[in-house]
Amino acid sequence: MARKVGIIGLGHVGATVAHGLIAQGAFDDYVLIDTNEEKVAAEAMDFADAAANLFHHPNIIVNDYQALADADVVISTLGNIKLQDNPNADRFAELPFTAKEVPIVAQQLKAVGFKGILVVVSNPVDVVTSLYQKYTGLPKERVIGTGTLLDTARMKRAVAQHFTIDARSVQGYNLGEHGNSQFTAWSQVKVKGQEIATFLSAAELAVLEKAAITGGHTVFYAKKYTSYGIASATIRLVLAIVSDAHEELPVSHYYEPLETYLSYPAIVGRKGIIERVQLQLTRDEEEKLAASAHFIQEKFTESLAVKKE
Amino acid sequence: MARKVGIIGLGHVGATVAHGLIAQGAFDDYVLIDTNEEKVAAEAMDFADAAANLFHHPNIIVNDYQALADADVVISTLGNIKLQDNPNADRFAELPFTAKEVPIVAQQLKAVGFKGILVVVSNPVDVVTSLYQKYTGLPKERVIGTGTLLDTARMKRAVAQHFTIDARSVQGYNLGEHGNSQFTAWSQVKVKGQEIATFLSAAELAVLEKAAITGGHTVFYAKKYTSYGIASATIRLVLAIVSDAHEELPVSHYYEPLETYLSYPAIVGRKGIIERVQLQLTRDEEEKLAASAHFIQEKFTESLAVKKE
Amino acid sequence: MARKVGIIGLGHVGATVAHGLIAQGAFDDYVLIDTNEEKVAAEAMDFADAAANLFHHPNIIVNDYQALADADVVISTLGNIKLQDNPNADRFAELPFTAKEVPIVAQQLKAVGFKGILVVVSNPVDVVTSLYQKYTGLPKERVIGTGTLLDTARMKRAVAQHFTIDARSVQGYNLGEHGNSQFTAWSQVKVKGQEIATFLSAAELAVLEKAAITGGHTVFYAKKYTSYGIASATIRLVLAIVSDAHEELPVSHYYEPLETYLSYPAIVGRKGIIERVQLQLTRDEEEKLAASAHFIQEKFTESLAVKKE
Amino acid sequence: MARKVGIIGLGHVGATVAHGLIAQGAFDDYVLIDTNEEKVAAEAMDFADAAANLFHHPNIIVNDYQALADADVVISTLGNIKLQDNPNADRFAELPFTAKEVPIVAQQLKAVGFKGILVVVSNPVDVVTSLYQKYTGLPKERVIGTGTLLDTARMKRAVAQHFTIDARSVQGYNLGEHGNSQFTAWSQVKVKGQEIATFLSAAELAVLEKAAITGGHTVFYAKKYTSYGIASATIRLVLAIVSDAHEELPVSHYYEPLETYLSYPAIVGRKGIIERVQLQLTRDEEEKLAASAHFIQEKFTESLAVKKE
Repeated sequence: MARKVGIIGLGHVGATVAHGLIAQGAFDDYVLIDTNEEKVAAEAMDFADAAANLFHHPNIIVNDYQALADADVVISTLGNIKLQDNPNADRFAELPFTAKEVPIVAQQLKAVGFKGILVVVSNPVDVVTSLYQKYTGLPKERVIGTGTLLDTARMKRAVAQHFTIDARSVQGYNLGEHGNSQFTAWSQVKVKGQEIATFLSAAELAVLEKAAITGGHTVFYAKKYTSYGIASATIRLVLAIVSDAHEELPVSHYYEPLETYLSYPAIVGRKGIIERVQLQLTRDEEEKLAASAHFIQEKFTESLAVKKE
Repeated sequence: MARKVGIIGLGHVGATVAHGLIAQGAFDDYVLIDTNEEKVAAEAMDFADAAANLFHHPNIIVNDYQALADADVVISTLGNIKLQDNPNADRFAELPFTAKEVPIVAQQLKAVGFKGILVVVSNPVDVVTSLYQKYTGLPKERVIGTGTLLDTARMKRAVAQHFTIDARSVQGYNLGEHGNSQFTAWSQVKVKGQEIATFLSAAELAVLEKAAITGGHTVFYAKKYTSYGIASATIRLVLAIVSDAHEELPVSHYYEPLETYLSYPAIVGRKGIIERVQLQLTRDEEEKLAASAHFIQEKFTESLAVKKE
Repeated sequence: MARKVGIIGLGHVGATVAHGLIAQGAFDDYVLIDTNEEKVAAEAMDFADAAANLFHHPNIIVNDYQALADADVVISTLGNIKLQDNPNADRFAELPFTAKEVPIVAQQLKAVGFKGILVVVSNPVDVVTSLYQKYTGLPKERVIGTGTLLDTARMKRAVAQHFTIDARSVQGYNLGEHGNSQFTAWSQVKVKGQEIATFLSAAELAVLEKAAITGGHTVFYAKKYTSYGIASATIRLVLAIVSDAHEELPVSHYYEPLETYLSYPAIVGRKGIIERVQLQLTRDEEEKLAASAHFIQEKFTESLAVKKE
Repeated sequence: MARKVGIIGLGHVGATVAHGLIAQGAFDDYVLIDTNEEKVAAEAMDFADAAANLFHHPNIIVNDYQALADADVVISTLGNIKLQDNPNADRFAELPFTAKEVPIVAQQLKAVGFKGILVVVSNPVDVVTSLYQKYTGLPKERVIGTGTLLDTARMKRAVAQHFTIDARSVQGYNLGEHGNSQFTAWSQVKVKGQEIATFLSAAELAVLEKAAITGGHTVFYAKKYTSYGIASATIRLVLAIVSDAHEELPVSHYYEPLETYLSYPAIVGRKGIIERVQLQLTRDEEEKLAASAHFIQEKFTESLAVKKE
């Protein structure tokens, strides 16, 4: 019955995701939503000005929540990136802004009876995904954050550059929070047919882990936002959902053993999280994961407290 | 021997063009050049952070003119869009900035022996394309401006919306300057199997012509730049070149009858402009074209005078 | 709600259409149906063996009419091409075979409550499309034959080769029957910005018209079938439908003025034929169209008579 | 300087590879070569008849070895599949036919000075790849067989179906001969984040290994050839080469430790085999690999002896 996607928040990331999807004809109908009416109308017009030169026809609908009722996927990219533009700030600088927006959007999605999959890109993503699940009341498996799918890609980029191979030929994941408490599960990383520890010492791996993170900072400080890495991760996740791929992806979902949203590989399909994967992590990695989970839980609890004030 | 593209100027348009090409695997090697070293490094890193989640492998090279020696196509998107952000400004507000940059870039392209096709997006595009041709010394048919390929897409968008049809099912062109002296050659526009004048009066066509232009303004004033429309036009032109498509496209090229660069449909392939098309315009349209040509010539002459000062 | 397509008949054309759609990820769910159970299972397995090396995940369902209940599009490619492999045969050689199959398939589609768009590729396509409409009872605008979309592509190929331009830069159509009574509406063909009659005499056009047809024969006699041309036409039509493109395409649909299915440009979208286009044909062309319509009507009437025997 | 590919042998596999590449615009220039002049001309015409309805413009050249001089990649799909259509036959049934053709083609490639990468699909692929390397005199790393890239995809299909996951989320390889002496290196197969042996017994793995092979037989016996699986594997390999991806792929290349062509994962790029990967196989797997290598060597030696007779 045609593919329909909603994008809430037409800032740099939302617009780049929309462009990437439109250019490859990934969906038939695109519902673009933003409180800045001029901005979202402008992006819609810019896409319409592209249409005569594209391979696929996009149907673009602006600021119509009702049109989301039968969407396959809704993507939240809302936020206020300017709040992060401060040497002492991190993704949590956006939380006060975003925490206020989430209940409003969630209420709208409930009101129209949205029953698809909600993909959350808004930062701090693990906390915001938790908030969306709480306020929409959608089943936990239908609310997914992009989480460390981006950080994993950054780790693969750093490893791939070190070994002069394709980033897609690096296996493994970054786990936990899409934030400072995350870590690369090096025990799971394979490259050139072997565990990466065969080739590199713990110290060398630490250098690569840092290079992965530093790269993201380089992008942010020069552009004041990041867009192509996160958009590509989002598009991959969304395609896995709509095509019911049952693809294994490290994304933020509700991880029962630690009772919180965090990133861990899961099988993703049309019903959202189909099944959680079970890794054989080292004890050290399990501890890092628990610490990251604890951090996310605390921040989530704080965000609820703030809301009540 | 692999497809290689260079992009000079990694602002919004340059980065969006690069992203569009990378996402569809249109080229093998991408040479990104910008005088803002931090910005171009950041864009390259952002693309690298996308690589693990893309279908195609991009090889990205930063700020290396030598790597352009065997490029198929070099795209100039350099400029300073902030100079247009003024109610009284138009594309010519960027000319003093761009006119200084062009000889520097041209000299570098000459120095490395670039022999491919130079595609100019920088505004005011007809004058800047003329300057590039002059300073690179490349044969005229190998220096092409995106010109009214974007304006044509905007006209098709406006017409398509009016008739509720696909923009790709509207035939016709905007001609002349990619600027205020351009016009829609309504005598050439066909829709639903007939000349558009069968359906609409001259007054109604004037409304559509204005709607096409106003749409672009809406985008600019809300975003402070336009990106998806122009990037899609650029990508279409570049694909026609590298695949030697001999596709008919309204782009800015040296139009002998009026002795200037301006937009008029031409057959485009690997050697650049293969052949100029010959339209049967109305006398009124011919006069508008001549006026537009005259305007571009004057501005080009002025830009040379400024240079000499 | 995901994109779902059904393909009935997994011969060369059906399998090539399926492959083309799967390779570009055009649909999420593919329902493949054929009375030759071994053949359809083999094609499904061959596609499954491709999946690990593709960009998109296909869900493939075999011989399950029930799964067509909510399909966006069902494509009929059933037939028996061997019946055409005879110097005296044409597309009508398949009619006795196909005319028996259509009511059976139609009954199945009715039984499951299929409400999408039925795209008919089976030959002789105009008659078979009429039969499908009759036996499914679907509204006429929801049953469409690929018709002369292929013949138009062949005409564009012949014209493009003559002028050394891209086939996509030739405008115009072949009209009428997808068979011997069809014709190129040369009055509508534009190339290099002008009516083709500006460049070529009637005799030269006749040579091109013949070259277009002869090319198809060359393919058939060497391969014993044709596949890539027709598959590409079918895919284009199907994409226009599912994306609700409102694209203008010369396809076989019920043409009220002549009371028959035949090919004539129409606006195509999610509801099938959105609107018929109105061409300004020459009197000679109008007569050819009427003759072609008359021929199709006769054949359709005959096919019904045969059925009753 | 544009992407150019040559395809030698326009049977089912060659034509399907060509179609897949053309439909996605993977190359600019396609050189199609076949001793059956009618067949190759027919396929070229069928592709030309698709051009007006495709997104990308292909340039198609027929039976011109000279045009291969600057090709990036040449793909050999020549063979005589009918020789395999016998209950007692396997891929070696084609060897007498193919072994005669290889020196002729190799001589032509040498004569025109082809310096790109030669990708061999012709069966029995390990022996035929060895022959091509010998007769062209190309460096070993520039002659690559598709080998078990297809068998690996079949293993992934069988595993993916068992676990209801995406075939692309199964990691691992089939190694050795693209033939009966091959084997799945189960020690390397990971699924759902763990070694597959965590989930399945050796007996259950044996069932899956057999299911992978049986699937291929099912396709062959019903279609009399296989096409989509092998074409998709070939296209993936070719894209890795031309884009210089440095992707890890299990393909047939000269494996020094056992002094023969066989399939084993390698890093693949524009220079062909960039580097061999080193797996930690079990002793049992190492023995199977050695046995497979020995078998290929014997058959290669026999094929040379036959040639001399």
